[in-house]
Amino acid sequence: MLKPLGDRVVLKVEKEKEETVGGIVLASNAKEKPQTGKVIAVGDGKMLDNGQKAVPSVKVDDKVLFDKYAGTEVKYDGEDYLIVRDSDIMAIVD
Amino acid sequence: MLKPLGDRVVLKVEKEKEETVGGIVLASNAKEKPQTGKVIAVGDGKMLDNGQKAVPSVKVDDKVLFDKYAGTEVKYDGEDYLIVRDSDIMAIVD
Amino acid sequence: MLKPLGDRVVLKVEKEKEETVGGIVLASNAKEKPQTGKVIAVGDGKMLDNGQKAVPSVKVDDKVLFDKYAGTEVKYDGEDYLIVRDSDIMAIVD
Amino acid sequence: MLKPLGDRVVLKVEKEKEETVGGIVLASNAKEKPQTGKVIAVGDGKMLDNGQKAVPSVKVDDKVLFDKYAGTEVKYDGEDYLIVRDSDIMAIVD
Amino acid sequence: MLKPLGDRVVLKVEKEKEETVGGIVLASNAKEKPQTGKVIAVGDGKMLDNGQKAVPSVKVDDKVLFDKYAGTEVKYDGEDYLIVRDSDIMAIVD
Amino acid sequence: MLKPLGDRVVLKVEKEKEETVGGIVLASNAKEKPQTGKVIAVGDGKMLDNGQKAVPSVKVDDKVLFDKYAGTEVKYDGEDYLIVRDSDIMAIVD
Amino acid sequence: MLKPLGDRVVLKVEKEKEETVGGIVLASNAKEKPQTGKVIAVGDGKMLDNGQKAVPSVKVDDKVLFDKYAGTEVKYDGEDYLIVRDSDIMAIVD
Repeated sequence: MLKPLGDRVVLKVEKEKEETVGGIVLASNAKEKPQTGKVIAVGDGKMLDNGQKAVPSVKVDDKVLFDKYAGTEVKYDGEDYLIVRDSDIMAIVD
Repeated sequence: MLKPLGDRVVLKVEKEKEETVGGIVLASNAKEKPQTGKVIAVGDGKMLDNGQKAVPSVKVDDKVLFDKYAGTEVKYDGEDYLIVRDSDIMAIVD
Repeated sequence: MLKPLGDRVVLKVEKEKEETVGGIVLASNAKEKPQTGKVIAVGDGKMLDNGQKAVPSVKVDDKVLFDKYAGTEVKYDGEDYLIVRDSDIMAIVD
Repeated sequence: MLKPLGDRVVLKVEKEKEETVGGIVLASNAKEKPQTGKVIAVGDGKMLDNGQKAVPSVKVDDKVLFDKYAGTEVKYDGEDYLIVRDSDIMAIVD
Repeated sequence: MLKPLGDRVVLKVEKEKEETVGGIVLASNAKEKPQTGKVIAVGDGKMLDNGQKAVPSVKVDDKVLFDKYAGTEVKYDGEDYLIVRDSDIMAIVD
Repeated sequence: MLKPLGDRVVLKVEKEKEETVGGIVLASNAKEKPQTGKVIAVGDGKMLDNGQKAVPSVKVDDKVLFDKYAGTEVKYDGEDYLIVRDSDIMAIVD
Repeated sequence: MLKPLGDRVVLKVEKEKEETVGGIVLASNAKEKPQTGKVIAVGDGKMLDNGQKAVPSVKVDDKVLFDKYAGTEVKYDGEDYLIVRDSDIMAIVD
């Protein structure tokens, strides 16, 4: 199991379907859209200046919206995950 | 539903009408004007250094003025939204 | 009405009269001079690290001196305003 | 009257006499020397993180030494002043 | 023995097996994957602003995931180690 | 007299003797050595975030070691001084 | 004697033996290895934001590992020393 540290969150990214027309990959919009993923594991929370830990803002199984370029890709047990910081997650999608 | 995290705010942007003369798009003023939008959802507020959360300065349905280049565009349920930080909102328009 | 947020202040800028000689605009001094304006509206004050708000240092109707390049131009109800941060205002002109 | 805000100080700069030999302006030393000025007005002091204000380190009529490139020139009532931050003043000259 | 200071952690890195085909080293994926290592020694923890020390988030013998470019290589007693900061460790691999 | 403000210290620099061979100035070592000076005057100490002042770490007449490129040269009463910050002084030479 | 200030530490560096083969200096490894030294003197500790001093993490006679490019070389009484900051020391070598 991957146990993220501090304010890190392990996500399973939902693949973007590339739009194609007759097999040709269409250039996506100039302005990048954020991506969605599912929360797999959550760290203990960010260490604050006073030594306490901030409560993470997401929990396991939340579907979240994050910036496409945030985080680090991790391969674990043959699966791809993304480790992002709690603050890189913009919104929970209910 | 989109539930923004921390100091983030979900806005529905009011489209700028491009001024045209005879179908020609006129170059806007050199100095960019800010844009207006309506607040759709508000996060819990920014995490302060002491672990408490700041009270957000806007509420749902406020009409707000924000910098044109702030935030991230989000498509959700076929609608376009903008997620900005509370601090990128300059003023409430009454 | 424009209700500025946080440490922002709405100003009505006093137009600089461009000096001209026979209709020719004279190059102003190399070193930029600050400009003056009248305070139209004042935000609640800057959020401090401890969650409290700083008392703004200007009030409505103050005539103030600010840096020419500070702030964002806003058009509202056909009038031009400037939104600056409290800290960009250098002095009150009595 | 000019009432400086926060940690700002209004100075009346003492003109440097340019050294000339037979009307030719001599290049000053490569390493810039600081300049002196007289304190005309002092702000309330810098806002600290805890919301209190720091006591300014100079008072009206102090003769002070400051960095030549610090501050903003202001013309007021036909007189030139310089507005600097308290922290740009290096020493009081007794 | 190496006794790391502050928020530093001494790791024994697990060598990545370079994939080769017929002796040719294959270019790895464009996006760098993080690496794993075993914790050998842990410092006392990061000095906080209030003078206290943060509790380190890993302990000796933990298998950890860290960014490939983090840390400093150290040779000690004929063995290679890597000294990283606690905050460069992304996750514990159980 | 020069009364330095805050964490500033007035030093009288000890001139480095340039090494010459037959009148030719020899290039000093590539890695710059720090210089020594005598403390002439000390400010009240650096303003801390809580509004208190830090006790300066040097006193008048201390012989100190400082970085060659730190500080600002000041000419006062025909004498050259250097104003440095307390934190630019590396060591006291007993 | 050299009395380092604040979080500074005076080290006596252990010379690296350059590896040579038949008198030719061999290029060291591309990735720089840190160096070791012996602690000669330790400052009072870093001034914290609350005005207190952090306890230094090394003591006189400790053998330490530091980054090769950290610190400032000092010549004193014909001997070469290195002054580094406490935080540049990575580990104590027992």
